Amino acid sequence: MNDTRLPIRFYFDFISPYGYFAALRIEELAARHGRTVQWSSMLLGVSVMKVMGLKPLMDTPLKGSYTGRDVLRHARRLGLGFRRAPEAPPMNPLTCGRAFQWALRHHPAQAAALALALMDAYWLGGLDLSTPESLRAVALPEGIDPGELVAGAASAEAAGWLREAVDASLQAGVFGSPTIVVDGEMFWGVDRLEEVDRWLATGGW
Amino acid sequence: MNDTRLPIRFYFDFISPYGYFAALRIEELAARHGRTVQWSSMLLGVSVMKVMGLKPLMDTPLKGSYTGRDVLRHARRLGLGFRRAPEAPPMNPLTCGRAFQWALRHHPAQAAALALALMDAYWLGGLDLSTPESLRAVALPEGIDPGELVAGAASAEAAGWLREAVDASLQAGVFGSPTIVVDGEMFWGVDRLEEVDRWLATGGW
Repeated sequence: MNDTRLPIRFYFDFISPYGYFAALRIEELAARHGRTVQWSSMLLGVSVMKVMGLKPLMDTPLKGSYTGRDVLRHARRLGLGFRRAPEAPPMNPLTCGRAFQWALRHHPAQAAALALALMDAYWLGGLDLSTPESLRAVALPEGIDPGELVAGAASAEAAGWLREAVDASLQAGVFGSPTIVVDGEMFWGVDRLEEVDRWLATGGW
Repeated sequence: MNDTRLPIRFYFDFISPYGYFAALRIEELAARHGRTVQWSSMLLGVSVMKVMGLKPLMDTPLKGSYTGRDVLRHARRLGLGFRRAPEAPPMNPLTCGRAFQWALRHHPAQAAALALALMDAYWLGGLDLSTPESLRAVALPEGIDPGELVAGAASAEAAGWLREAVDASLQAGVFGSPTIVVDGEMFWGVDRLEEVDRWLATGGW
């Protein structure tokens, strides 16, 4: 049974284009069912390479070139002008992950908006956000001070929070981005948003 | 632009539950857009393990257990009673692939129905169809003689046709089951049928 008091959990990695596509839609989807969204970090570099023992998606023969084409097709369908080629080597996602973890503690009401701002800057703006200083170039949500964000993202505390969040994601069985968990039921992939919608509407099957 | 004279290509492996789910819906989808379907063999054992260098899906940590659950959820949504556990080791798909290749040459009008009959027997009936003789237990489409099918599936000719079909699938860039190709545009995954539907309706984007 659905319990509308419980938030939907939304797991994403900043370097996942499909995570970005889902991030753009998840709040509207949840709100339509009276739900809030708990945005949660995961790292594909840990789940895919260390835990699952697979190679990076874009380095996988056949699948890599299909995915590059599919990402751009998806972006066109959403009307998004991507400035980052899906085939380009991804940035190191740790800085963004740590900045997001810092915001969850210090500006919880703006944390989701910060995540979206970082993803916009990366995918649409083509910025490399792999160092704390690089975050200064991002159009930040109101209320988040660039200097504080840079210091927060560079802090050992934020690195620890991100490690804990990634451990928790693996404990929850999360391996891909995006992953959505509704009342304990897990859905992987942006192409499952319609299924999540139906699950929320019906209470499951 | 769409060209309704061209068939949609539908690639599947008999041991892929998502291929089965798509097989149940592809003809209706195509017909709605005035298209026919060219059913085509692929083998995950070749594309996933030999070409992509990945391990079998169900043996992949985290992803395997999610997939087992997801397959049964998908089956419930379609109202299908699965008698084969997704976690069970798959049968060897070569016999079914060869039987299908034989049917494409000798009973082209029944080949898709044969593929569906074999998948029904495997997924719903729980039959192991890894030897030619085992095909006698399948409820075959009218016009296909069980003895001829068994002999066809056991023939060196059919083995060669399957090898050629799998080579052709790899040449076309196909790596997963199901894969649907519409006028040169490739879509991977049963959760992309809605996108294929939209592509056919709009001519692409």
